[in-house]
Amino acid sequence: MDRTQFKHHIQLKVRSYEIDWQGIVHNAVYLQYFELGRVGYIEELGITLDINSIQREHRVVLARAEVDYRAPARLGDVLAVLTRVSYIRNTSFAFEGILEVQATQKRIAENRAIHVWLDHRSDQPVRVPDSFRKQVQRFEGDTAIIDWPAYET
Amino acid sequence: MDRTQFKHHIQLKVRSYEIDWQGIVHNAVYLQYFELGRVGYIEELGITLDINSIQREHRVVLARAEVDYRAPARLGDVLAVLTRVSYIRNTSFAFEGILEVQATQKRIAENRAIHVWLDHRSDQPVRVPDSFRKQVQRFEGDTAIIDWPAYET
Amino acid sequence: MDRTQFKHHIQLKVRSYEIDWQGIVHNAVYLQYFELGRVGYIEELGITLDINSIQREHRVVLARAEVDYRAPARLGDVLAVLTRVSYIRNTSFAFEGILEVQATQKRIAENRAIHVWLDHRSDQPVRVPDSFRKQVQRFEGDTAIIDWPAYET
Amino acid sequence: MDRTQFKHHIQLKVRSYEIDWQGIVHNAVYLQYFELGRVGYIEELGITLDINSIQREHRVVLARAEVDYRAPARLGDVLAVLTRVSYIRNTSFAFEGILEVQATQKRIAENRAIHVWLDHRSDQPVRVPDSFRKQVQRFEGDTAIIDWPAYET
Repeated sequence: MDRTQFKHHIQLKVRSYEIDWQGIVHNAVYLQYFELGRVGYIEELGITLDINSIQREHRVVLARAEVDYRAPARLGDVLAVLTRVSYIRNTSFAFEGILEVQATQKRIAENRAIHVWLDHRSDQPVRVPDSFRKQVQRFEGDTAIIDWPAYET
Repeated sequence: MDRTQFKHHIQLKVRSYEIDWQGIVHNAVYLQYFELGRVGYIEELGITLDINSIQREHRVVLARAEVDYRAPARLGDVLAVLTRVSYIRNTSFAFEGILEVQATQKRIAENRAIHVWLDHRSDQPVRVPDSFRKQVQRFEGDTAIIDWPAYET
Repeated sequence: MDRTQFKHHIQLKVRSYEIDWQGIVHNAVYLQYFELGRVGYIEELGITLDINSIQREHRVVLARAEVDYRAPARLGDVLAVLTRVSYIRNTSFAFEGILEVQATQKRIAENRAIHVWLDHRSDQPVRVPDSFRKQVQRFEGDTAIIDWPAYET
Repeated sequence: MDRTQFKHHIQLKVRSYEIDWQGIVHNAVYLQYFELGRVGYIEELGITLDINSIQREHRVVLARAEVDYRAPARLGDVLAVLTRVSYIRNTSFAFEGILEVQATQKRIAENRAIHVWLDHRSDQPVRVPDSFRKQVQRFEGDTAIIDWPAYET
């Protein structure tokens, strides 16, 4: 992944209890870090993460996550999480993430996280709302591939 | 993934604190479940997970993890983790995992986890030991693809 | 704490990712174990832990937790969590817990967890319902001290 | 606890995956937050948290933790953890912690954490080193009660 494509950065510090018995950050914790990046990204778009959204018409679920581990993060490391939306299709979209040491840009891990928009009642995929497409396009400009499928008639 | 290829099963129960604000098991927890499957598998092969292995000549690191989320796990669910080694190459090997509801075999998630054998000092990949190849072959029989690369001369 | 006073036992196995960089179960994880004991206890009383209880009239909150650490739990340990209600007062009640190695009864930790019954709207303490007092009394018999405060008139 | 007695403050932000099914930070996570405060305190004293300290002559273990929960922390909250050493006795010492909302000083929780200095081989308590007493005294001044027990002769 090319870090120049990522416009959204957050910073975080490795926490003591995230270190496992091998003396490195546990492999599942990186998924948590990338989630923090996505939450920050969503907030920067101006979307409030509503923990009552459970009750809403639609919901967004994680369908697939990939992590490539490049080098372990260690106690005391100050890390940056870079986040972008790489594409939006009809009913799905993808986040990409880079985790790196803040000071040196040493690559720690990379992440792809495919999300799907679901109807809350039927649990069936529905079209990603145009409002979300617009918010992402405004933020990403040309770096995200955003489809604008015609509505079925 | 075809569940008939998996010879190793463990059972676990979703724990209350693994439930997130959406009322389902948090997405990073599934990686923990698949790890439990792998730890159980390794133990069944007769290998002791040595938490002092840090000091050893070689170590095994997770290089890539993939999770496909099929359906959320919920509070009280009793789950099965099915684990197998799908291949062993020169310096790497792959675990596959299926997470399902124990009683109904409802598919919750699938996992691929690519591991690499490293020299502890140089951090360079080294050949997966023949002893490990034999242990896996004895357990898996034909279901795992195990290369036996010739030693360089 | 006297283990003969505890009628409710659950069993759990230390999970690999609960081990910290010191090679022992992390200190915050013991609180999770004791919670599992309490969830099991509540279920044995016949009370369903309703994750939508958020919407209900009353809710029960943890007001104070104490843990005495006797000996560290380690990878592979099979542990028992013993749980009891030690008292019910007007608006509060206390759980006690013992964590021990299943096979040897070696004491790992002890826990006290004081809970308070709150009115969901006002966030003010309300009387612990008589139905809960009865359920606990039926299960505990003489080992729990249960007050039956007169209703104010 | 009187917050004016606390000279060491760190700031942290509630992370999405720390929220439980009740929509608040899970009760065990507060112990993690207080640990972060203690780690920061130790670093400010100039002591490096050595994750290889396992191999050392002495080690410091948590013997007892108490948490008083005042109000739940929620998603997005920016919190302060205030940490101090309240006393050092012969073989033990106590940390105290306050968790509060950074902006409003709304009290979220309080913590006491009693630690014991152990001989690594015998697992028996040993005298807290004078070097540690001095470091704490220099930082705390009069706010910590530090005994200077005479060496047995």
